[in-house]
Amino acid sequence: MSRIVMKFGGTSVANMQRIRAVAAHVRREADAGKSVAVVVSAMAGETNRLVALCEEAGAPAPALDARGVEYDAVVASGEQVTSSLLALVLQNLGYRARSWQGWQIPLKTDAAHGKARIAEIDAEAIGAAMDGGEIAVVAGFQGIAPNGRIATLGRGGSDTSAVALAAAVGAERCDIYTDVDGVYTTDPRLAKKARRIAKISFEEMLEAASLGAKVLQTRSVELAMAHKVPLRVLSSFEPPDAQGPGTVICDEDDIVEQNIVSTVTPDFNDASVTILAVPDEPGRAAGIFTALADADINIDMIVQSASREPGYANISFTTKEGELDRALEVLSAEQDAIGFKSLQSDRKVAKVSVVGLGMKSHAGVASIMFKTLADKGINIQNISTSEIKISVLIDADAAEYAVRVLHEAYGLDDDRKPGA
Amino acid sequence: MSRIVMKFGGTSVANMQRIRAVAAHVRREADAGKSVAVVVSAMAGETNRLVALCEEAGAPAPALDARGVEYDAVVASGEQVTSSLLALVLQNLGYRARSWQGWQIPLKTDAAHGKARIAEIDAEAIGAAMDGGEIAVVAGFQGIAPNGRIATLGRGGSDTSAVALAAAVGAERCDIYTDVDGVYTTDPRLAKKARRIAKISFEEMLEAASLGAKVLQTRSVELAMAHKVPLRVLSSFEPPDAQGPGTVICDEDDIVEQNIVSTVTPDFNDASVTILAVPDEPGRAAGIFTALADADINIDMIVQSASREPGYANISFTTKEGELDRALEVLSAEQDAIGFKSLQSDRKVAKVSVVGLGMKSHAGVASIMFKTLADKGINIQNISTSEIKISVLIDADAAEYAVRVLHEAYGLDDDRKPGA
Repeated sequence: MSRIVMKFGGTSVANMQRIRAVAAHVRREADAGKSVAVVVSAMAGETNRLVALCEEAGAPAPALDARGVEYDAVVASGEQVTSSLLALVLQNLGYRARSWQGWQIPLKTDAAHGKARIAEIDAEAIGAAMDGGEIAVVAGFQGIAPNGRIATLGRGGSDTSAVALAAAVGAERCDIYTDVDGVYTTDPRLAKKARRIAKISFEEMLEAASLGAKVLQTRSVELAMAHKVPLRVLSSFEPPDAQGPGTVICDEDDIVEQNIVSTVTPDFNDASVTILAVPDEPGRAAGIFTALADADINIDMIVQSASREPGYANISFTTKEGELDRALEVLSAEQDAIGFKSLQSDRKVAKVSVVGLGMKSHAGVASIMFKTLADKGINIQNISTSEIKISVLIDADAAEYAVRVLHEAYGLDDDRKPGA
Repeated sequence: MSRIVMKFGGTSVANMQRIRAVAAHVRREADAGKSVAVVVSAMAGETNRLVALCEEAGAPAPALDARGVEYDAVVASGEQVTSSLLALVLQNLGYRARSWQGWQIPLKTDAAHGKARIAEIDAEAIGAAMDGGEIAVVAGFQGIAPNGRIATLGRGGSDTSAVALAAAVGAERCDIYTDVDGVYTTDPRLAKKARRIAKISFEEMLEAASLGAKVLQTRSVELAMAHKVPLRVLSSFEPPDAQGPGTVICDEDDIVEQNIVSTVTPDFNDASVTILAVPDEPGRAAGIFTALADADINIDMIVQSASREPGYANISFTTKEGELDRALEVLSAEQDAIGFKSLQSDRKVAKVSVVGLGMKSHAGVASIMFKTLADKGINIQNISTSEIKISVLIDADAAEYAVRVLHEAYGLDDDRKPGA
């Protein structure tokens, strides 16, 4: 009997009407003869309400002391409620269904309360129940820690629960239902000619996920890749009897026709920092980046260029906008030790990235990018690349335009749609 | 080290301000060197919200099929949240504290989801934690059933959780904090001269609890009596540093000076039924009460009297007002079989009861009641008695007056207070 795992997020179970819609999607798969497990999040807004109660009670989130244990027990109750409500609705439709809380499976985690990692899933009982025709409704986002207490996996953890469960029960696929009908070549709100992607590889999705395409949590994609569990992104807002095909995220080898570039992704959350006139001596750059790392500040897109002054260099990098002030503080405190002249920063920047497995085997992808942007008069401030990704830092005001022209340049436009 | 159990109901933990007040009561006992367990209910209103969600999902309450299992998992989340929030507040006050859910103790129940009975409490781990100086905050109202699922004890079950836990850990007493400062000789809203009772026996409290004094759940008093756990009723709304003495509920032998009558209790939830002209033959009354019992209708105060017609009798009884319509339906359906002439019913009745252990050894308690009511022109419709209780059924409009005159007649008036 083939097993599948379905996952529904908070907006998909926001109220009883939405839960009934979810039940309709679930029964479609059960009626098709699948052994079904469903992983659910808390009702939209519920996790925030519970987190606020914890904070009012004095637990900073994430709390890493004993308070984190209690925080987890409070917050996990949201998924506990949704899983039982969905089981109830399925029972009233005449299906056998039961809820499974993390500790009941058991889904064992490590001891890192508030952001636990899954250690092991004992899939025997739940797999047997599924194959016996009972729909397993699983409370996402949670498990049981070595101390016997409830642990949560951190925000977005229900995706990870679903993928890990799919791997543990040997599911043929894991369907992630969200409020969009698939993964797009770019953000459809920015470019009307954006297309839904039929198939995309794990590697590309990982780059896209970490670049800010918020469809899937990065960890869940990593886990799916490691266990070779095909993912499918679908909309829970489509009629259950007219479900679209969504986007399949799978192994590179399972994609017959590979695009050179799959996605064009803008990210407006970056800020840039330039350190002017750093003495061009060994150890100076190391001093800068050690200080930032010690302060737990993530940086990206590092560029070193010659200063006008001989014997000095300028060093630029990007960081998340929310960490900019702290980064500037850390650097100012080190100014004497490092010996640079001054600091510049810019919040009005955007990172635009093109991602595609085809880059591995096709030359010229970068030159198309640079030429296209140059032709349109868009100035590139920084560049960074990986094996399957090229990112450029540009003026934030030009980003939307850049996305559209790159989308067209890489042949991604859906020409059935009106131009943007 | 002496252990105590404290229990706080829904109004006592209704919001974070109230939970902080609870924490102040708890720390007072911990500072006094007690090993403390605290049992909490869900925040006031939360259980109703969760029950409404279950009903919306199609689980009638109480649901006794598979749906009851899911109902329990939803509803039990209320106590789960409160227990962790109180643990957090205590931690932030510098105390070691942790929450215990029913399945973590474990508190084992039978399989009757929605109204489970406690089968066994493994007190070893929680007792050791308490004696180690960690305050145990227990989610009330719930345990783990033989199937490994969460089971709830039914409404008011947190009192029962607290008493059972007190028995299991050998607590010197179980303090039940509510929104009143003790058990009163009668309802202070009806009689201003009502007095708080310093000590009352389990037996008297049981009669008073089942008669409608809603301070404590009947089952919790039974359990305390069986295990000889002294209970104390206290107000959580008093300042923690000026806590009143409340009411102690204990073994008869521990009460030195026994009142003949302890309480005068009105109950406005009854209705009376009179069956006119039942053939006075063996088996007729049995037919009536078998039919009512088969329909699960509770009855009380049965009186048989001669009818004006020779060879016939009238039979009266009381039932809960909410069950009256069903009782009348059942009887009408049996009219031909039983052979009675007609039915009368009356919702405008009240049962007024006096309860006191002293009745066992003092004659004349009943005659004071009948004489007092007769002197005031209050007509008695029905009478029922037990070893320590006399109840009369009277016109509902006269009940408040009857309570006041009986309260005075039995010497219960608090003469420091202004007359009613």
